[in-house]
Amino acid sequence: MYMDKLSTQPTKGFHDIYPEDMRVRQWLFGKMRETAMLFGFEEYDGPILEPIEIYAAKSGEELVKQQTFLLTDRGGRQVALRPELTPTLARMVACKKNQLTYPLRWFSIGPRFRYEAPQKGRAREFYQFDCDLVGPTTPESDAEIIALAATFFKNLGLTPDDVVIKINSRKMLQHKLSLLDIPSSKTNEVIHAIDKKDKMSEDKWIEYLKTEDLSDDQIKNLLKIMGDRDVSFESDELTNVFSTLKDLGVSEYVEFDPSIVRGLEYYTGTVFEARDKKGQFRALLGGGRYDNLVELFSKESLSGIGFACGDMVLLEMLSSHDLLPNTKSLSSHTSRILVTVFNESTVRASLKLIRTLRDEHIPSELYPDFAVRLDKQIKYADKKGIEFVVIIGPDEMKNDTLTLKNLKTGEQKTITFHELLSLVQ
Amino acid sequence: MYMDKLSTQPTKGFHDIYPEDMRVRQWLFGKMRETAMLFGFEEYDGPILEPIEIYAAKSGEELVKQQTFLLTDRGGRQVALRPELTPTLARMVACKKNQLTYPLRWFSIGPRFRYEAPQKGRAREFYQFDCDLVGPTTPESDAEIIALAATFFKNLGLTPDDVVIKINSRKMLQHKLSLLDIPSSKTNEVIHAIDKKDKMSEDKWIEYLKTEDLSDDQIKNLLKIMGDRDVSFESDELTNVFSTLKDLGVSEYVEFDPSIVRGLEYYTGTVFEARDKKGQFRALLGGGRYDNLVELFSKESLSGIGFACGDMVLLEMLSSHDLLPNTKSLSSHTSRILVTVFNESTVRASLKLIRTLRDEHIPSELYPDFAVRLDKQIKYADKKGIEFVVIIGPDEMKNDTLTLKNLKTGEQKTITFHELLSLVQ
Repeated sequence: MYMDKLSTQPTKGFHDIYPEDMRVRQWLFGKMRETAMLFGFEEYDGPILEPIEIYAAKSGEELVKQQTFLLTDRGGRQVALRPELTPTLARMVACKKNQLTYPLRWFSIGPRFRYEAPQKGRAREFYQFDCDLVGPTTPESDAEIIALAATFFKNLGLTPDDVVIKINSRKMLQHKLSLLDIPSSKTNEVIHAIDKKDKMSEDKWIEYLKTEDLSDDQIKNLLKIMGDRDVSFESDELTNVFSTLKDLGVSEYVEFDPSIVRGLEYYTGTVFEARDKKGQFRALLGGGRYDNLVELFSKESLSGIGFACGDMVLLEMLSSHDLLPNTKSLSSHTSRILVTVFNESTVRASLKLIRTLRDEHIPSELYPDFAVRLDKQIKYADKKGIEFVVIIGPDEMKNDTLTLKNLKTGEQKTITFHELLSLVQ
Repeated sequence: MYMDKLSTQPTKGFHDIYPEDMRVRQWLFGKMRETAMLFGFEEYDGPILEPIEIYAAKSGEELVKQQTFLLTDRGGRQVALRPELTPTLARMVACKKNQLTYPLRWFSIGPRFRYEAPQKGRAREFYQFDCDLVGPTTPESDAEIIALAATFFKNLGLTPDDVVIKINSRKMLQHKLSLLDIPSSKTNEVIHAIDKKDKMSEDKWIEYLKTEDLSDDQIKNLLKIMGDRDVSFESDELTNVFSTLKDLGVSEYVEFDPSIVRGLEYYTGTVFEARDKKGQFRALLGGGRYDNLVELFSKESLSGIGFACGDMVLLEMLSSHDLLPNTKSLSSHTSRILVTVFNESTVRASLKLIRTLRDEHIPSELYPDFAVRLDKQIKYADKKGIEFVVIIGPDEMKNDTLTLKNLKTGEQKTITFHELLSLVQ
């Protein structure tokens, strides 16, 4: 019977991570963990499926209605593949609200899912690095989170010439809008419009503001605010955030930008996003302060500040700056030693060597097929980037020695087991 | 307006991983990575969503029809949350079949999803450790995979008194069944029946076999095979696997068991599963050889052997044997130093100390709120398990010193910054 073969492609917008790409991913996740832990953050994780309600209220209409993978489970519950982690954080914090020790410094690294059109730097399944500091509402906590983001870039090799973290205050912006007689019922629409500003020309933006029923005067003043780099000094809070960032040593990575608002509706105070200086990529990370993290779940209130950083744009950026590691050079990506098998009569000697090497915690592998010719076994080691090859033939067995081939230098010598150990340990 | 608050509970069968549990999970994943890499295995990962077709043919009817989370994406594609990883591995290997270097030694650690009734040791979202060796069909490759599993238990502190890996050969079993005149069309049903053997009494099992239309004679002989611990010597292959396992130093962890078949239909050769010796838990891991990994995707053929190990039963087992680490003792679970803030006038000195400590790669955190009393700041450090607290008050600022409190010993002394560094580096 003839059977059609299935496609070997992953689902659209999803990616296979082969070992070579995995090494890069693990290197990146390592930098995330290292930086978060340097700032005293602890790792947590939540479910990949969440009840749809926890996104419906706050995550922004577009995200929930158009970009979420929804399913109805066999119990009739409407659930979603998490498009972001903050609602999960909120639920988890609310659940143990009175048992947790504040300030919380929590981070997480994991997959998120958005039903968007796949394109360069955007996929339907991607990874995000989330950091949140929950409890205090001080400028020092804002600065700690932003300094963590800056230090993360620094640890990746990105300099202040490459990236900038643009900072603004929603509170200050809202105050400014109220001074323009924009009613508070309209604030969200205007903030949404500001969020779209850098996606269109100034003329187009002005037209867009007119469709939002802003007067010519209001538009003129709004443009003035957007261009005023000194307006931050009118906010004590922002002034404190910037001076704290200076004391934390990251002032070169940050600047005030009155047009930064971040799309998500739950931000209420300081907001920030990181951009590449050349403007080639979408935002590298974004975040801000939310006045009440747990309001969907609890009558009590709890403030926090955090950011999320996706892996896709960041990897594009690092690649374009030649900052990705050579995956062959990444430590422990493969065995240190391949123990070949000469023929059936030498198998046991090879097995015993493998056993001893592993007892000594030296990553090593046996070539598991003596029907394969020795030169092909060695070629395998070379392709995989294994540094040392050991050959135990009948002569070596007789003399209780082994032949060591260094595939980097091509050097080959006959040595004892103890010499091998002192060489690789 | 009164608003009902949402539940803080995760979706049924899903778990929140708070930092304390995350430390245990990361410790366990670390042991998985460490062991796999000791055997020269490379990490990979696939998508969490896969086309339903890749499970439909091989994963066993129960798994696909009753236990899979299915959804139809907005493009009309039927996709599933992966219940297991082997079909993804098959797809990925088939996709790059001619570019990959064999033998492949690949492992993966990630979430899987099964719609089962949640109970102790079983959840709808859980993690699995998958190891596969693809290419050769030799007893040495079977032994490498089983030795990896045994070494994993050893690295977790589980001894041969605690766990046993039971090994059988499907090929030998099928041969034995054919000798009983069981037609090959019926082999799968009988193998399925053998898989259920240890879930019922012998009487019940005999009744069950009768409903499968086996004759009294066939049943008698089948029982004899199931009780015969020496039948393994009839298979050269199994004999070689066991002698290789002995040379690899793990013979104490393994035994032959003719009743092990593993449920999944794609196994064709050696099969194995790990059990706790007291029989308290379900299988700790299971796996086997599949003759043609890529047959759904390719006309060419490729054999492999692998296992999957879930986190839930393993954690139960480790907990019952008191082998889980004390999470407070796990290295780098929190900052080494809390830098407190005495009052507004000393904030800058605290910030600068934090900056310098982090420049020296010492995980440390600032207490980000000087409105909080010093004793409460110290209590926070104590609760979080932070070892050192630094206080910089007006006196310390004047004398360019700092006060260091060791929360483990209670000792408190005034030292210089350089003394602090040499203490914690």
